[in-house]
Amino acid sequence: MAAEIVNPRSDSDSDDIGVDGSSLDPLDPAFALHRGGKMAVRATVPVRDKDDLSLAYTPGVAKVCSAIAERPELVDEYTWKSSVVAVVTDGTAVLGLGDIGPRASLPVMEGKAILFKQFGGVDAVPIALDCTDADEIVETVVRLAPSFGGVNLEDISAPRCFEIERKLQERLDIPVFHDDQHGTAVVTLAALRNAARLSKRSLGELRAVISGAGAAGVAIARMLVEAGIGDVAVADRKGVVSADRDDLTPVKRELAEFTNKAGRTGSLESALAGADVFIGVSGGTVPEAAVASMAEGAFVFAMANPNPEVHPEVAHKHAAVVATGRSDFPNQINNVLAFPGIFAGALQVRASRITEGMKLAAAEALASVVGDDLAADYVIPSPFDERVAPAVTAAVAAAARAEGVARR
Amino acid sequence: MAAEIVNPRSDSDSDDIGVDGSSLDPLDPAFALHRGGKMAVRATVPVRDKDDLSLAYTPGVAKVCSAIAERPELVDEYTWKSSVVAVVTDGTAVLGLGDIGPRASLPVMEGKAILFKQFGGVDAVPIALDCTDADEIVETVVRLAPSFGGVNLEDISAPRCFEIERKLQERLDIPVFHDDQHGTAVVTLAALRNAARLSKRSLGELRAVISGAGAAGVAIARMLVEAGIGDVAVADRKGVVSADRDDLTPVKRELAEFTNKAGRTGSLESALAGADVFIGVSGGTVPEAAVASMAEGAFVFAMANPNPEVHPEVAHKHAAVVATGRSDFPNQINNVLAFPGIFAGALQVRASRITEGMKLAAAEALASVVGDDLAADYVIPSPFDERVAPAVTAAVAAAARAEGVARR
Repeated sequence: MAAEIVNPRSDSDSDDIGVDGSSLDPLDPAFALHRGGKMAVRATVPVRDKDDLSLAYTPGVAKVCSAIAERPELVDEYTWKSSVVAVVTDGTAVLGLGDIGPRASLPVMEGKAILFKQFGGVDAVPIALDCTDADEIVETVVRLAPSFGGVNLEDISAPRCFEIERKLQERLDIPVFHDDQHGTAVVTLAALRNAARLSKRSLGELRAVISGAGAAGVAIARMLVEAGIGDVAVADRKGVVSADRDDLTPVKRELAEFTNKAGRTGSLESALAGADVFIGVSGGTVPEAAVASMAEGAFVFAMANPNPEVHPEVAHKHAAVVATGRSDFPNQINNVLAFPGIFAGALQVRASRITEGMKLAAAEALASVVGDDLAADYVIPSPFDERVAPAVTAAVAAAARAEGVARR
Repeated sequence: MAAEIVNPRSDSDSDDIGVDGSSLDPLDPAFALHRGGKMAVRATVPVRDKDDLSLAYTPGVAKVCSAIAERPELVDEYTWKSSVVAVVTDGTAVLGLGDIGPRASLPVMEGKAILFKQFGGVDAVPIALDCTDADEIVETVVRLAPSFGGVNLEDISAPRCFEIERKLQERLDIPVFHDDQHGTAVVTLAALRNAARLSKRSLGELRAVISGAGAAGVAIARMLVEAGIGDVAVADRKGVVSADRDDLTPVKRELAEFTNKAGRTGSLESALAGADVFIGVSGGTVPEAAVASMAEGAFVFAMANPNPEVHPEVAHKHAAVVATGRSDFPNQINNVLAFPGIFAGALQVRASRITEGMKLAAAEALASVVGDDLAADYVIPSPFDERVAPAVTAAVAAAARAEGVARR
């Protein structure tokens, strides 16, 4: 499987990634599998006879409603609210396909929903919205919120994704998490932690260069700075994002404030000379010469899908650790390693939000699963490693308690 | 089980029905059953390994998204959209509890969702909205609509429920159905058809009086007129709704236009004198003398919950057929007899709306399940009669085709 981390339309600086827009072929196994959708609802209580019904529905249900009306927090105990996440999109930045609209985005949202269930035991419902205005999306999600324990924003294009997430976090007391940003950042940081451990280096001594200043690039930059990476620079199509540039969007101006403390300017390639870490979330390409110019023992995370910014075989000639977004190479940076456990942990303790500390804890827990098996081709576990979600869940729940955002 | 058909807050003229607002008692079986909620989501495709994931999620899913982007109608084939209904409320008229808000309404919406699944095989998702303005509700549901195959409006107070339903039907090309209105009306008509058959009378020769001019009363009146009942009068707390009254709301003015062709005025009791059918959806009480004044062989459907407008034992002294909303008396008028099959039939043929003809067909199919077993204490089948949903589904699907609203 290829990860969903690269989202070209959410990065105004990226080249488009070609994803096959194949026409309908009912014999294609993907179409065969998708027929009728990929999910269903089921009752978790019996409804076999009158007695069952008189408890699960009227008149029995009235007592439960009354109790919640008197003590609103009981909604988390006596309904599925606290275990169900809305997977919300407007269909503007779907995979590498771009703005294909809410209906065409549904197969991805359903896929996300079943991954929530499969990997985190979290119920999730696809909500693809027929509006793209940021304030309309915010209003709509605020109105929906009583029914859900959390909101996973998905495939919403930048820069609206930043504003929508921030406003929802201000207005809601349930976790709101834009996975294209933070899921990617958590998994990237986990891999980076292990790469550093493998080469016996501290995060503080690393200099990282990120290619791509969209949703994923901005979130990764923020997280690496939080985690204490020595120097982080972000490059967009015009080069390194630096305070002296006069073409920066508000998001990139903010980026220039908290990254690039060495005050680098110029091209991505020039920034890579002597750098320890390359993180690609742009969908562009990086010439081999630029990779060769990096410091000894470099880490190259070329995460664009389906075409990494630099092919892993080429990267290996110059780098100590190589990761991609693809399942057919070692070290796949895949969001599914993070979001199920992050939401499971947050929901478990009824967290009111997902803090930086919870995300850092998730990255640390994810990294720790690798343990003593750490190797250059194993800095991040497989999505099918059954230790992953429980470890992330526990770490996130503990961090929520430590940070005072847990409600139980 | 008691039916959900009586919704006093949706009927400004009704007395409140006392429903126990018992405080939390965790040993109460209703609370024990509700702990953790009553529903969950499940994947219907395997996600066991890399290969599964590469079909159900990226990269396989991209082909399906692209196909839908090219041919939007494919969303019904390749996602769960066409099998999932949003159960939408604002929590303003929940059971007999009234305006308890969206969170406290969730146990009812979950209950409804599992009844959809259990009886109709229809997936349903509770959507309790944190807004009560009619236009805001309409906008919100329109924005959600790409994710759903139908919208079941539930427990929204009158008169907003009428406006919300009408506006949504105008703007959406999927079925929008306020069950408190139409579900109740369909089941009532089915019972009335069978009562008439039992007493060898035609619908055209019957004179009916409905007590209650809220959501259920208005919808029943409309449906009985459509079905050809000879004369239908509706009474609110101030008496029969008639064109000469100057205190009518817009909805009741409309009611006055298509009902009460005999031009009756005065009290409910006076209208009952000589009437053939009493239908109570008000929650008030009807004195025995008024029931006694009805025509020979009358039908009394006293559907208020938990206290019928007239006790069935009393009604039996004067009436040929008695029905209630309660499961502990024969002839329970229960919406669950209608809504699962109505939506299942509409979704099966991808109907763009639920027409009057489809509702009439549903009532006819429901009535026909009783067949040769017809008796005074059996004019309507049990909710657990397994023939009900398939019969209603088939009839509604056929009617949708006949009326030209089916898309397949």
